[in-house]
Amino acid sequence: MQTPWDYRYSSRSQRMASSAIRELLKLVEQPDIISFAGGLPAPDVFPIKEIEEACSRVLHTKGPQALQYGATEGYTPLREMIASRSARYGLNISAENVMITSGSQQALDLLGKIFINRGDRILTESPTYLGALQAWNAYGAEYVTVPSDDDGMNTDYLEEALRAGPKFIYALPNFQNPMGTTLTLKRRQRLVYLADKYGVPIIEDDPYGQLRFEGEHLPSVSVIDSQYRSSPNEKGYSGNVIYLSTFSKILSPGLRLAWIIAPPEVIRKLTVAKQGTDLHSPTFNQVVAHEIDSGGFIDQHVKLIRKVYSERRDAMLDALTEHMPTGVHWTHPQGGLFLWITLPEGMNTVEIFKYAIEEKVAFVPGFSFHPRGGGENTMRLNFSFCKPEIINEGISRLGRVLKTQMK
Amino acid sequence: MQTPWDYRYSSRSQRMASSAIRELLKLVEQPDIISFAGGLPAPDVFPIKEIEEACSRVLHTKGPQALQYGATEGYTPLREMIASRSARYGLNISAENVMITSGSQQALDLLGKIFINRGDRILTESPTYLGALQAWNAYGAEYVTVPSDDDGMNTDYLEEALRAGPKFIYALPNFQNPMGTTLTLKRRQRLVYLADKYGVPIIEDDPYGQLRFEGEHLPSVSVIDSQYRSSPNEKGYSGNVIYLSTFSKILSPGLRLAWIIAPPEVIRKLTVAKQGTDLHSPTFNQVVAHEIDSGGFIDQHVKLIRKVYSERRDAMLDALTEHMPTGVHWTHPQGGLFLWITLPEGMNTVEIFKYAIEEKVAFVPGFSFHPRGGGENTMRLNFSFCKPEIINEGISRLGRVLKTQMK
Repeated sequence: MQTPWDYRYSSRSQRMASSAIRELLKLVEQPDIISFAGGLPAPDVFPIKEIEEACSRVLHTKGPQALQYGATEGYTPLREMIASRSARYGLNISAENVMITSGSQQALDLLGKIFINRGDRILTESPTYLGALQAWNAYGAEYVTVPSDDDGMNTDYLEEALRAGPKFIYALPNFQNPMGTTLTLKRRQRLVYLADKYGVPIIEDDPYGQLRFEGEHLPSVSVIDSQYRSSPNEKGYSGNVIYLSTFSKILSPGLRLAWIIAPPEVIRKLTVAKQGTDLHSPTFNQVVAHEIDSGGFIDQHVKLIRKVYSERRDAMLDALTEHMPTGVHWTHPQGGLFLWITLPEGMNTVEIFKYAIEEKVAFVPGFSFHPRGGGENTMRLNFSFCKPEIINEGISRLGRVLKTQMK
Repeated sequence: MQTPWDYRYSSRSQRMASSAIRELLKLVEQPDIISFAGGLPAPDVFPIKEIEEACSRVLHTKGPQALQYGATEGYTPLREMIASRSARYGLNISAENVMITSGSQQALDLLGKIFINRGDRILTESPTYLGALQAWNAYGAEYVTVPSDDDGMNTDYLEEALRAGPKFIYALPNFQNPMGTTLTLKRRQRLVYLADKYGVPIIEDDPYGQLRFEGEHLPSVSVIDSQYRSSPNEKGYSGNVIYLSTFSKILSPGLRLAWIIAPPEVIRKLTVAKQGTDLHSPTFNQVVAHEIDSGGFIDQHVKLIRKVYSERRDAMLDALTEHMPTGVHWTHPQGGLFLWITLPEGMNTVEIFKYAIEEKVAFVPGFSFHPRGGGENTMRLNFSFCKPEIINEGISRLGRVLKTQMK
């Protein structure tokens, strides 16, 4: 049907191609496919009962407030709760440093809106989080990339990239999406040092930081940067690193609640942008998220999530050892939801995807996570969604496909 | 505190000034002020019990789905419900014409994102809805305006404005925000005719359409346009009018749920934009909104809202008759949340606002709703939020201020 809208799309909308993933994933919707393609949390660990109780308490005690319009920055008690949780990890901030967003995707969109002019260069890891690219492509971002290895962003290549004059650095230090890798302490320090040397600020995206199964907690880049600029052991917040995290992985993604930690002036700019974007995130969901944590529930709950995801990661690692042909490399995530497979050079995981679908198993081809191309021989696997026995069966199917393709 | 972010804001963000309303409204937050400034629904009519019951039923029967990630377009049963409700009003559409958004503000933002290039001219009424201006200013919109009177947009001036080559027309035919006026049937037909003559499509924003207290329902511009293009009495959807509405005024604004009706191709473009903007609106809220209407609750509930708002509008009209000095003109809304006051030429409601605050009563000065200036002698009053006796007291205070100022 022809309509008068057909020739009226913005030039911006031409840059917002539907992601290749999205098109491929339509193939995954058949029910008998074992899918490692999505990034879904395990529904088994959704705290349904606790959310129901919190909904009831909120509606009984604060109904009119919870159902009314709210402040653009977010529900103050929730912002305070996030500030005090952050203080435990060494970031000494207050509610005025916190804005509530409708998922981390909105945080990325709002940051793009207030910072990115068409043609601005953003420094990212390669591969990096696809959602950031989708948000920022709309604002005309271009990318300067630093390659990653099993220890995250390879900071040996960082200085050269910084000399390209990026507007900011975008980094995912913990259990990175898509690779599942963790940036080592030494590299975090190097990142902070070099960013300071060139005066380039950092956006640190940390959706999975609470989901560490093994190894010791590493200080966030925002904490390292804050310490770097102040006297030893002083807790503070430098403002040079904008930090993002979310309730999607520790409570439920269906609530669409995440947060941004930034200097107050950046929060004010974000607030003006959010006012025109969706006015505010759902009051009800915010009050419920605050209510559910009133007895310290989230700390308890993440222990369960870590246990379940850790078992599933183990199941996937074991299955990979059992079923993969030689020449296939995979990462060993210390937390999070994903791991990353690298096939020998010359293999093409988009081609292999079609055979995998025939064998009723799905993954995400890795090329789509590379802002400047590359990664044709890589793929992302999610281990949080499927139960261990399903994981084993799925990896066994994938092994069969790869053995045939790698002959 | 200086940070490296200070010189990195986008040129877009310079265009997104915090609204003058927002700054003024900070003065309103004193508890003893009677505020007609906001646009808040009456919390007295929030269906708290029904929402609680729906939350419980949803979490018991569909918990894992309701708390998980969902489709960007929205929860299919909710989209179907909106399609079938729309059919009752003569718009024969299906779920593929419907996208769920995080409030109407997001609908306006996404439409700006996919349609507006910097410098594009948008045809609006003057005054018009401030939220649309806030959303579209970020994308560099400019405005061509048509003056309004007590019957809505004055279509006598429309043809001249259309010849300026606007990208689309933005119209609020029912109980317009800010004026409370309703576009007459004749003017709706004229709008459709002239828009077709110049090939310019229309965005029809209808947040209050269900809240008519008196007079007969008028067909929406989208229905009139669809009939205009098809054989008589045939129900269909032309696609030339994109229609917006919301659950904020008929259920609760704190759920942040609204919808867009558009041709499937526009919905696809919006979906790609929304994917990068906030991935999807909260699954939980969508499933709850669908559940709450399963027994036809919304139709019942709007009767209550109409009754309560109608009483409050009457209280305000009576109080205005009682307390306003001669020379003050006001609109007589047939529905909605607002009415509009015009003072004699030369009066300035921004000046008067300060005296009003001293008298502990607040309104929104009308100039901010005018995309190209004007309206210094106008103000918007909300009648949905305060109880009738409070309305009378507030208008009596405002009357005292105006009598002093108009001497």
